[in-house]
Amino acid sequence: MILVKDAKDIILNSAYNFGVEEVPFLKSVGRILKENILADRDFPPFNRVSMDGICIDFNAFKNGQGDFKVEGIQAAGIEQMTLQNKENCIEVMTGAVLPNNANTVIRYEDVTLKNGIATININKINDCQNVHAKGKDRKVDDVLISENKIISAAEIGVLATVGKSTVKVAKQPKVMIVSTGDELVGVNEIPLKHQIRRSNVFTLVSLLERLKISSDTAHITDDKPILKQKIKGFLKDYDVLLFSGAVSKGKYDFLPEVFEELGIEKLFHKVAQRPGKPFFYGKTNECNIFGFPGNPISTFVNCLAYFYPWYYKSTGLETEEETAILGENVSFKPNLEFFLQVKLKSKFGHLVAFPVKGNGSGDLASLVNADAFIQLPNDKTEFKTGENYPIIRYR
Amino acid sequence: MILVKDAKDIILNSAYNFGVEEVPFLKSVGRILKENILADRDFPPFNRVSMDGICIDFNAFKNGQGDFKVEGIQAAGIEQMTLQNKENCIEVMTGAVLPNNANTVIRYEDVTLKNGIATININKINDCQNVHAKGKDRKVDDVLISENKIISAAEIGVLATVGKSTVKVAKQPKVMIVSTGDELVGVNEIPLKHQIRRSNVFTLVSLLERLKISSDTAHITDDKPILKQKIKGFLKDYDVLLFSGAVSKGKYDFLPEVFEELGIEKLFHKVAQRPGKPFFYGKTNECNIFGFPGNPISTFVNCLAYFYPWYYKSTGLETEEETAILGENVSFKPNLEFFLQVKLKSKFGHLVAFPVKGNGSGDLASLVNADAFIQLPNDKTEFKTGENYPIIRYR
Repeated sequence: MILVKDAKDIILNSAYNFGVEEVPFLKSVGRILKENILADRDFPPFNRVSMDGICIDFNAFKNGQGDFKVEGIQAAGIEQMTLQNKENCIEVMTGAVLPNNANTVIRYEDVTLKNGIATININKINDCQNVHAKGKDRKVDDVLISENKIISAAEIGVLATVGKSTVKVAKQPKVMIVSTGDELVGVNEIPLKHQIRRSNVFTLVSLLERLKISSDTAHITDDKPILKQKIKGFLKDYDVLLFSGAVSKGKYDFLPEVFEELGIEKLFHKVAQRPGKPFFYGKTNECNIFGFPGNPISTFVNCLAYFYPWYYKSTGLETEEETAILGENVSFKPNLEFFLQVKLKSKFGHLVAFPVKGNGSGDLASLVNADAFIQLPNDKTEFKTGENYPIIRYR
Repeated sequence: MILVKDAKDIILNSAYNFGVEEVPFLKSVGRILKENILADRDFPPFNRVSMDGICIDFNAFKNGQGDFKVEGIQAAGIEQMTLQNKENCIEVMTGAVLPNNANTVIRYEDVTLKNGIATININKINDCQNVHAKGKDRKVDDVLISENKIISAAEIGVLATVGKSTVKVAKQPKVMIVSTGDELVGVNEIPLKHQIRRSNVFTLVSLLERLKISSDTAHITDDKPILKQKIKGFLKDYDVLLFSGAVSKGKYDFLPEVFEELGIEKLFHKVAQRPGKPFFYGKTNECNIFGFPGNPISTFVNCLAYFYPWYYKSTGLETEEETAILGENVSFKPNLEFFLQVKLKSKFGHLVAFPVKGNGSGDLASLVNADAFIQLPNDKTEFKTGENYPIIRYR
């Protein structure tokens, strides 16, 4: 049995670069960017009018002029005009190019327009006001988005602005999710008294969809030759196999044996944690094998605590640890790291974690009332209100 | 000009119930649940073995018996067996039904099995240990998930468990996103010197996808008759219109006039905030109209600050305010509520917000370096390190 920290290190050391693919930019949300996005021109690309109003040569105003004959209108989307006489003005619209020979914009609110003459109603004007100077935000070839970032709506706007209609992102691993257990029936079936419905595969499918990974699923009965034959095929066809169940001490927990017979290198089996202790992790040259214990909460927490970091490392994403403050005392005697379900509350900028009472690792419904797991280390047994510990959010 | 708080109240008062639809459970992630999910049976549905080992009648052990003849194996997924002789045992697997006449499970680690006899190696055993009693977690007809919750991977597992292969969720509004502005060209085009590419519509599409709303988009030139004709059609066909641009004071900012001519009731135009001040909100009997200012950050923040809460209220979702602690002093003089871009850091359970320097509402790229907006009220001008304020996250 190894420590959570060591298990995580082993898994991170097995991270694997699946390469890069190009996708339409609108389909890239949630994916990990694998190229630097550069400014294709200065931003703004021209001296940009930032208020609706009139533009003038500031010197005219400085010299005491208050009335300006209107030469025309510079709308957004129109080629740059030229102020023919520096004692005149041009009406300008937000987003327009600032006309030649003008440098200062006075907004409509501070101007009276009558009979083709604009009269400025205020005494104080700043040279170059209400003009967003060319290149002020960014210069051509500046890095606007660095690679290895998760793409969100904010990045989508930038990609559109610089004309990146397709974008390079980390390729996703091909994942097969396998459930075992003869007691399991389909979601559409009515279970007999001794049966229950499959649920872990669907939880895993959803947890992977959060990472924009689409996965395949299979159910295999607790029959060793069949397990062996099917898994042999999966090892060839997939980058990652996620198992739920059949990794513990039971007579029909064939997976560890089957893995060994198929030449899967066991990197560890059993981690000093609750829930999720009988977790198996191994690999071949081409495939990573996560054998999660079959209890619903064990599968859930181990996917978050191990598969997620492995995926982030594999795709180059750097993540930051998040911590929360315990809202209640917790006592936990076993010499195991405790992943405790908590409800998070934001209070005055503090993130407070309230333990959610569950009935152990089989009580899937208790996850519904929580938002995250708080990770309580195995070298203590008493955890006090006000102490802070790392959390893993799942919503 | 109205206050942010009042603008938000007006918008929440216009929330609209779009009804309910039924979707396959695996497609329901991110949607708002519109039915209570009940336990279809007790959970566990039978006295469930929770460790691999042997089961016995506790009285035999209590009477001093240490060796138990093995009658057979109760696997998971097999009908309940019966312990024929209460001085014998049955091997049992995690997830199996506890056999009749047995009540206590001793794990393999504490037993020696030899020649069909199981010898218990420990002195202390508790009555009924390692048995997860029928109905201990939940009773039949208990509410496992209450309606009006966002469905996540945790809820997917519960839906599968109780056989909800389809589930009732809030229907999504039909949304049209319209950009205006003759300076805008497509993402695939090379803009002329006075042009820029469309980006706000795509940002809005992505922000709506976060809510699992798929939207349509259109671009209309700054031509009043064309605007009027197109919008007239949209008002019939959509529940929500989101506009970006053409709501300010410019000569070609036709939208407020067009809205009036089309009989749209103006609920407000201009909010005391920066960025995003010239925001227009109105409605007809069938349609809600959000006119966001055309600057990229104004559109972005107003979608988060107004459309999101409107959508949550419309679908019945209750949300909680999140706050963060300022990591730097901020000075902001105008009598406006300030939506300031911040980078969030988790430190010892505190959420600290560090302002991200941008160049005003046109500098879309600055959103890339931030995670959220912190909302600084308009009745103060100096905001000190350590004070906490509400935030709106966008990643």
